[in-house]
Amino acid sequence: VPTLADIGEFEAIRRLDDARRSAADVRVGPGDDAAVLAAPEGRDLVITTDAFVEGRHYLPAWCGAEEAGRRLAVANLSDLAAMGARPRWAFHAVGVSPRADVDDLVAFERGLAETLAAHGGSVAGGNLSAVGGPAWHVVTLVGDVRPGRAWTRSGASAADWIAVTGSPGRAGAGFLLAQTLGDAAREPRWKPLLDAWIRPETRLPLALALADTEGVSAAIDVSDGFAGDLMHLCAACALSAVLDEAAWPKDESLADASRALGRSLDALRFGPSDDYELLLAVRPDARERVEALAKRVGSPLTFVGRLASGPAALRLRRCDGSLEPLHASGFDHFR
Amino acid sequence: VPTLADIGEFEAIRRLDDARRSAADVRVGPGDDAAVLAAPEGRDLVITTDAFVEGRHYLPAWCGAEEAGRRLAVANLSDLAAMGARPRWAFHAVGVSPRADVDDLVAFERGLAETLAAHGGSVAGGNLSAVGGPAWHVVTLVGDVRPGRAWTRSGASAADWIAVTGSPGRAGAGFLLAQTLGDAAREPRWKPLLDAWIRPETRLPLALALADTEGVSAAIDVSDGFAGDLMHLCAACALSAVLDEAAWPKDESLADASRALGRSLDALRFGPSDDYELLLAVRPDARERVEALAKRVGSPLTFVGRLASGPAALRLRRCDGSLEPLHASGFDHFR
Repeated sequence: VPTLADIGEFEAIRRLDDARRSAADVRVGPGDDAAVLAAPEGRDLVITTDAFVEGRHYLPAWCGAEEAGRRLAVANLSDLAAMGARPRWAFHAVGVSPRADVDDLVAFERGLAETLAAHGGSVAGGNLSAVGGPAWHVVTLVGDVRPGRAWTRSGASAADWIAVTGSPGRAGAGFLLAQTLGDAAREPRWKPLLDAWIRPETRLPLALALADTEGVSAAIDVSDGFAGDLMHLCAACALSAVLDEAAWPKDESLADASRALGRSLDALRFGPSDDYELLLAVRPDARERVEALAKRVGSPLTFVGRLASGPAALRLRRCDGSLEPLHASGFDHFR
Repeated sequence: VPTLADIGEFEAIRRLDDARRSAADVRVGPGDDAAVLAAPEGRDLVITTDAFVEGRHYLPAWCGAEEAGRRLAVANLSDLAAMGARPRWAFHAVGVSPRADVDDLVAFERGLAETLAAHGGSVAGGNLSAVGGPAWHVVTLVGDVRPGRAWTRSGASAADWIAVTGSPGRAGAGFLLAQTLGDAAREPRWKPLLDAWIRPETRLPLALALADTEGVSAAIDVSDGFAGDLMHLCAACALSAVLDEAAWPKDESLADASRALGRSLDALRFGPSDDYELLLAVRPDARERVEALAKRVGSPLTFVGRLASGPAALRLRRCDGSLEPLHASGFDHFR
């Protein structure tokens, strides 16, 4: 196995550049002091930065290098999706041990570059550093959007619908199954949850389809956990939210995991989970239009509640009609 | 001393945002899924990514947190200077231990943000991750330039002058003095070299003054070492270079360090050193114009040689007129 110490920095950079496949809209790509790109005329730029640390954001025993690269691309695409923006150029800074396998590094880059390319983006530059500890990857992704039309967390009004893609909590459940069951989590019955954790899909196509409508008033991506992220949106809008248990997407796999893990379904649905799903506030009159577009794009989208006047707080209406407070406990990296 | 574990992720992000002081050209700043910025009309974007790893790119015993932030800003500004581009928006991803001092993190951010602000840039977003090992900082800096007018490494022609700012080798000598002499390197006689290593100046003002002339044909920043970086430029242009020992800037401090370290002056001048100086190829007829502008801006600039037809190689003309090959040995992170 060739290591970075075997081939040196400049050969490693050459191999990374090969995996990057610069796009036509890159005027000067990797290999100079900086990349040069034609600024999109009459657009706003939308820029996000995400970091993956080996052993924290991805576990090599469960997630191959190419999968980890794909997942970091999805994490970044998810931030652009939450702004209604399309991806253009990514910059990938890597810290890796001199003893690391070069082929893993290149596989990570290939996963990242291919996932971005599938959505119109490319890796236009990067940086390679030696580190003693675990590897880390930082991707800064530049996108664009019609001027003044980026979704924010703060644009919603009382009575707007709350909609969410997919089935939040699956990624967190997949992680907990791997931690709790070990290799038994590789059984086929857990595959939907392990896939949600290791191989998430991006909801960017839905976001771009919806960006041209006026239906979405605010958005956030579910990367810390549904309740925590909804609470961020509520706080930004100074609104409260009422969720409807009966409307929540049915998920047999998540219910199975709840039993196997001895955790409540609520804790899995609403608690810490990096799903990279899209949480939308939808204008009252736009629900049918948004539902039709989601169906056309093939994205599962469920209307799970409504916003109401503030202060920011979450409540859950149970199937029996009772209303109870919902505690927002997202993921905190430092606690 | 409050640690990140004491205050948690969201309070830490709030304090970082306070230190960032978003600029007026930021439509949506830190706190949403991504930043939104008005794309500069009729400009090319120029984007660079740089990483600092604690204990490798900066040594806390020698470089305070705020100084480290300033130096990372200078490293990024130096890449834009080498493209003739002006800075606009930076994105700062941090990996730091839960046991780290919050005040150090904020001081780093303040050094970064203030240095960028002094040159028209701002920190428009970031990311905060917990890590077990040493801290790392990745800054992706977005700038802009007149379309088609970014300097590259490859634009030079035979007979162009080679000019360099400052006195390359000082930063590397400062680092070697600290490693070799320990606390004795803190004596006043070594201050110019320690300052070059810990508190480098950015050459951006000179680059922006020269960007409006047609005098510069190619550029690179000296961040790995003069000979290695000049060799990168020669390789990109398929040209050779002849350096003139007699023209080289006199530097008593560097000569002192050569004696104290028992290393040749050549090894210090031309070998590994992250000076963040600017290495320029200047058109034959533009030398006087470029010299006059450098004087007006107050940047020390020395014409140290000329480019010649290829293949890419470096030679040094000694004061006695003899010509000898110069070996390019830049810094390799992995060897």
